[in-house]
Amino acid sequence: MDDPVFARRSIRAYTAEPVSDEHVERLLRAGMAAPSAGNQQPWQFVVVTDPATRALIPTVHPYAAMVEQAPLAIVVCAVEAQARWPQYCVQDCAAATENILIEAVLLGLGAVWLGVYPLEERVQGLRRLLAMPDDVTPFAVVPVGHPAERKQPADRYRPERVHRERW
Amino acid sequence: MDDPVFARRSIRAYTAEPVSDEHVERLLRAGMAAPSAGNQQPWQFVVVTDPATRALIPTVHPYAAMVEQAPLAIVVCAVEAQARWPQYCVQDCAAATENILIEAVLLGLGAVWLGVYPLEERVQGLRRLLAMPDDVTPFAVVPVGHPAERKQPADRYRPERVHRERW
Repeated sequence: MDDPVFARRSIRAYTAEPVSDEHVERLLRAGMAAPSAGNQQPWQFVVVTDPATRALIPTVHPYAAMVEQAPLAIVVCAVEAQARWPQYCVQDCAAATENILIEAVLLGLGAVWLGVYPLEERVQGLRRLLAMPDDVTPFAVVPVGHPAERKQPADRYRPERVHRERW
Repeated sequence: MDDPVFARRSIRAYTAEPVSDEHVERLLRAGMAAPSAGNQQPWQFVVVTDPATRALIPTVHPYAAMVEQAPLAIVVCAVEAQARWPQYCVQDCAAATENILIEAVLLGLGAVWLGVYPLEERVQGLRRLLAMPDDVTPFAVVPVGHPAERKQPADRYRPERVHRERW
């Protein structure tokens, strides 16, 4: 297995094969294994597989066309009421989202991070579509499937962005 | 190798052994391999190994005592001027930080995420200490070393936080 941190790429094309229940749970466990401020775990997740719902997600998110083809979409949600340090909810949910993406690689799946929060139109659209209460914030949508495209690891290393001992 | 997503734990005790230059570069490459909004890569990094600087970091961050013992601290920084979608800088830098933590596991190292942004006192303290310009925001400090403590994977799975098809 290649290093999954580097093997992770944004995969937007998927075969029709469903993601197994076992893999869905593993992805959710990976999200919940993320670090969070004071271990507050300010997240919840909506698992969407219904084709009718998946077809509607692109109507509330301009870059979500692939969700209609993906057999699975995981919506990562932030719940400030679960947080003692609400100012860290965004970072915590981002760590959970990145964990799901890396776990997808380890399972042979492909996924992509679709940003939702803080764009109010996307937040409100997804909240309405998925019947979320007002105190739940949809943070990101992660379509997942068996990859129908292959990408090599990207080399994004920029040594000029590394500073030694001080800026 | 265990799944690094689950093996990752907050490691706050380190041996005196330095982190090799090769591993430092690998950690930085892992951070820069993170996904970001529109691939904007709004990050830069400060690599701190100097003991005098490491001893000062706890004076500007209340939970950073272990940085004095860690042979290495990577300060992840957000640079909005590099971003086309500045509203996603926080999430992008969080993904980079999580990548560094997972890569540390893969290298047999231990690390922990110390939150900085958005707490203004920590941001200003680190900016001053590391001579950062005002338009650079220290986002997180990640002390890294060879682990002097072992932790089992945490089971944080909470099935009641998983919703099916809608909230």
